[in-house]
Amino acid sequence: MTEKFEKHFKELVKKVEQYLSASIKEENNAQGEIYKAMNYSLLAGGKRLRPVLTLATAELLGADCDEVMPFACALEMIHTHSLIHDDLPALDNDDLRRGRPTCHKAFGEAVALLAGDALLNKAFEVMAEAAAKMNDPAKGARIMQKVGNASGTEGMMGGQVADLRCEGKDITEDQLRYMYAKKTGALLKAPFLIAIEAAGKTGTDEERKLLEYSETIGLAFQIKDDVLDVVGDAKLLGKEPGRDAADGKTTFASLYGVAKCEKILEEMTVKATSIAKTFGEKGEFLREMAEYLLERNY
Amino acid sequence: MTEKFEKHFKELVKKVEQYLSASIKEENNAQGEIYKAMNYSLLAGGKRLRPVLTLATAELLGADCDEVMPFACALEMIHTHSLIHDDLPALDNDDLRRGRPTCHKAFGEAVALLAGDALLNKAFEVMAEAAAKMNDPAKGARIMQKVGNASGTEGMMGGQVADLRCEGKDITEDQLRYMYAKKTGALLKAPFLIAIEAAGKTGTDEERKLLEYSETIGLAFQIKDDVLDVVGDAKLLGKEPGRDAADGKTTFASLYGVAKCEKILEEMTVKATSIAKTFGEKGEFLREMAEYLLERNY
Repeated sequence: MTEKFEKHFKELVKKVEQYLSASIKEENNAQGEIYKAMNYSLLAGGKRLRPVLTLATAELLGADCDEVMPFACALEMIHTHSLIHDDLPALDNDDLRRGRPTCHKAFGEAVALLAGDALLNKAFEVMAEAAAKMNDPAKGARIMQKVGNASGTEGMMGGQVADLRCEGKDITEDQLRYMYAKKTGALLKAPFLIAIEAAGKTGTDEERKLLEYSETIGLAFQIKDDVLDVVGDAKLLGKEPGRDAADGKTTFASLYGVAKCEKILEEMTVKATSIAKTFGEKGEFLREMAEYLLERNY
Repeated sequence: MTEKFEKHFKELVKKVEQYLSASIKEENNAQGEIYKAMNYSLLAGGKRLRPVLTLATAELLGADCDEVMPFACALEMIHTHSLIHDDLPALDNDDLRRGRPTCHKAFGEAVALLAGDALLNKAFEVMAEAAAKMNDPAKGARIMQKVGNASGTEGMMGGQVADLRCEGKDITEDQLRYMYAKKTGALLKAPFLIAIEAAGKTGTDEERKLLEYSETIGLAFQIKDDVLDVVGDAKLLGKEPGRDAADGKTTFASLYGVAKCEKILEEMTVKATSIAKTFGEKGEFLREMAEYLLERNY
């Protein structure tokens, strides 16, 4: 990882966190707890990968980063919504997230359920407010539609149901890829869809290349997660590894073993970096991002 | 209730249900169950009050009803989302809704949680798609923003948290009104906000009158619910009454008794019908609607 990449990554994270911190004001009213619970999870750190990818791709394509920011941060709200609901007893029943008690452990199940709902809702509130003020509000509405499709039944939420139905079953690699493309892939592709639409680059060769890049890192991200659940360190992960095996989940690690997964990951990283390189100097950040995602240990 | 009112109500419900039925296509894929669970709850009948109010107010103001339809139906999706999540064990833990097993009783908690999420998400997908195609997409974005505010932390979801915090406590009428205005009032006001924005009537005297009407019937609706929970018939309600008292909830019925509530309701209905009458013949539907909401027994 070059110093330049690290510095720019940190700059983007800082901008994102400033925006997120200002998004949800804690009100001292009868429902004050919902704001606390939302911010507890939203401002708990994390890689901020989705908004960072959105901003970096907007930069690459010459889109207006200020205009893109609300949509970038909406992705982080939707991602956090999904983590809160995933952790609930009805789904994964997790006690720890990023080294801290999960939202329902800290605020109770009822408030966590509603705080998760409210983060999803807030994402669309933020996007609608931004779209209404854009020079081209139809563009804003199209971006919202793409984000909504990414989080909905043919994206993240559908993928979660597919995941539930795969538990304890032997599934094929094709079925696993289908489920991953929706469950985590869709929301990792959304940053590119936002930036491409914002830059007016739909239907271009740049779109085609960026979407191939996004699908590659999206699947690699999930395979890396599968590997970390086998060999990862509890402290770095902020949660106990070994959950997939305990839940009887088919993963790339269970299908092929860790060594073969590492090899697949390297190949996918080469593919992603090659695509990034076709953008020349402008593609440097995405090239390093693919390498960073391969090397991460949490 | 005049025949004319009943006929038009039914016509509007029919249009709404046609739109809702066509909104969520059941796919035979790995996540097929989420579509089934969404439609199980969305197409389970119900009064369709929020979309009907939206269309009727659009008619009153001369807005384009076809343009308004996706936003009207988005309200029904958000309403259904809230019912599914409300019924979950983490919140009300209800087994019956509209005389049938609740969504989580029929599909399990995990799928019900995700189907509820997906209905909220779908509401915004539908609205974003509609806004992108409008002649004035900024107007569509402003409507989405108002709907999002109505369902979010300063509306329905915030009201649900306030409600949780009121349980088992003695609260004042002011606190109860605050909670009701958010929990149920906000989403009953949204139809009017949509129609007013669609008709380009913000800032007019018509807006002021319609919002007063909406706040009046919104509170009356909730007080009527309080009364029905005491004197209602289980068969007609589709669920067992007596829950509020069992949960130690302060309601208008617990504060003032049923007889005084009936009197308050009559006064509120007179107020709402008086406002509707100021619109002359065009206000007839809203006048009868206020009376219908008073007389309903479920």
